[in-house]
Amino acid sequence: MNVLIVSAHPGPASLTNALRDVAVEQLRADGHEVRISDLYAMNWKAAHDCDDFTALSPDEPLSFPFASMRAADTRAFSDDIIAEQDKALWADALILAFPLWWFSMPAILKGWIDRVWTAGVGYQISGNRYGAGRMAGKRAMLMVMVGGGESYFSDRGVNGPIDDLLFPINHGCLYYPGYDVLPSYVLHKTDRLDEEGFKAAAQDVRDRMRTLFTTAPIPYRPQAEDYTERKFELKEDIAATAPPGFAGHIRQQP
Amino acid sequence: MNVLIVSAHPGPASLTNALRDVAVEQLRADGHEVRISDLYAMNWKAAHDCDDFTALSPDEPLSFPFASMRAADTRAFSDDIIAEQDKALWADALILAFPLWWFSMPAILKGWIDRVWTAGVGYQISGNRYGAGRMAGKRAMLMVMVGGGESYFSDRGVNGPIDDLLFPINHGCLYYPGYDVLPSYVLHKTDRLDEEGFKAAAQDVRDRMRTLFTTAPIPYRPQAEDYTERKFELKEDIAATAPPGFAGHIRQQP
Repeated sequence: MNVLIVSAHPGPASLTNALRDVAVEQLRADGHEVRISDLYAMNWKAAHDCDDFTALSPDEPLSFPFASMRAADTRAFSDDIIAEQDKALWADALILAFPLWWFSMPAILKGWIDRVWTAGVGYQISGNRYGAGRMAGKRAMLMVMVGGGESYFSDRGVNGPIDDLLFPINHGCLYYPGYDVLPSYVLHKTDRLDEEGFKAAAQDVRDRMRTLFTTAPIPYRPQAEDYTERKFELKEDIAATAPPGFAGHIRQQP
Repeated sequence: MNVLIVSAHPGPASLTNALRDVAVEQLRADGHEVRISDLYAMNWKAAHDCDDFTALSPDEPLSFPFASMRAADTRAFSDDIIAEQDKALWADALILAFPLWWFSMPAILKGWIDRVWTAGVGYQISGNRYGAGRMAGKRAMLMVMVGGGESYFSDRGVNGPIDDLLFPINHGCLYYPGYDVLPSYVLHKTDRLDEEGFKAAAQDVRDRMRTLFTTAPIPYRPQAEDYTERKFELKEDIAATAPPGFAGHIRQQP
């Protein structure tokens, strides 16, 4: 199978990049094709702006959503965007590897999402999102390096539960374009990791790579099935029993 | 009072910038001093990297948290970071004005947080976070432009509740450094706003600016009071009655 790993740490010797390389090695050993987008090494442009559109009329009022929809058919986007889209479309699985900075992705990786997920790729102009779209049938997974300890991100931890903090990425940036999203690989206390800790982490990463195409995805609710048509809210019978907050958008396991 | 508005939309005539200007006008009419950081106009560098540190030793292994702590006392950060820190320290209130892109901030604004919130400013090296820190006593508020309709972001909407989507920003990026965080100003269906809609929005923004220093902040739980000391989890008696998810980190109104 084909795998794209997008990584976002500026230090060549960083833990993010070291565990990314462990993942690459295991995937290749298992016979997969792997491509890497090392955003810092590529000097990836983070800020989405008018230069991202190659056929923007200076006369029209600037609306990025409308501009993106008009550009979708001819893919009138800048070359660096097209190159990343082609990698993502080639890949059967997408892995985003990054340190958690301020409870989300580093800016450079957010800029990959902002710019690469144009109309026609990140979403279809008409039709359903969330479980449907261009990336349906593909898999996606986060590899997240977290400085803080696990308890700070537990159900009752002061930062909020890690799965909820990652929901805008997993559900909003990956399930929305259609990916089956796997449970995230999360490593805690990364600033105090010793050699033993790294070995254990590398083993976990290898295990996750070996099961990349068999692990059950998070059972997010498909928009076409579980939500009303006009208001895009949970159907009444589902809402009656679903838990509040983000958890309500995950189907309960039987 | 002093107010800093950080805005993040590339279109000079965009709704984000138009409503930012309405806010500025009202604040100045009310006698406040206002400074603006228009990140696209400033060509703000989004990607946090080694160049952000002016005294980084090439011999030490790169750890951004440790590098930031070592640089804090002498403020050995690049000039553009120092300039933004000085604005934020000068301001009694901080407003972040942005379009919601992929359920979070545009990359350029995330890069402002990633880079400007160094040790010594975004957090104290030792001591409490969340309701304590360098920004204690100051206020902060988001102005968020959302393309989708309100129901899509309701308690049962397919995207998740807007307050939960903004929690990593409000709680994680603003309350953490010590700000009193006000309820966000959120405008929906921004791509289909007509002149009447803009007038109503501008009136709402003026009202929010008039009450910027009197509106009650979101009653997030201070780390020093409501959490255990070592694990940073909700104290047992609080956890027993607090709702699950992000909502548990807000004190219930009596």
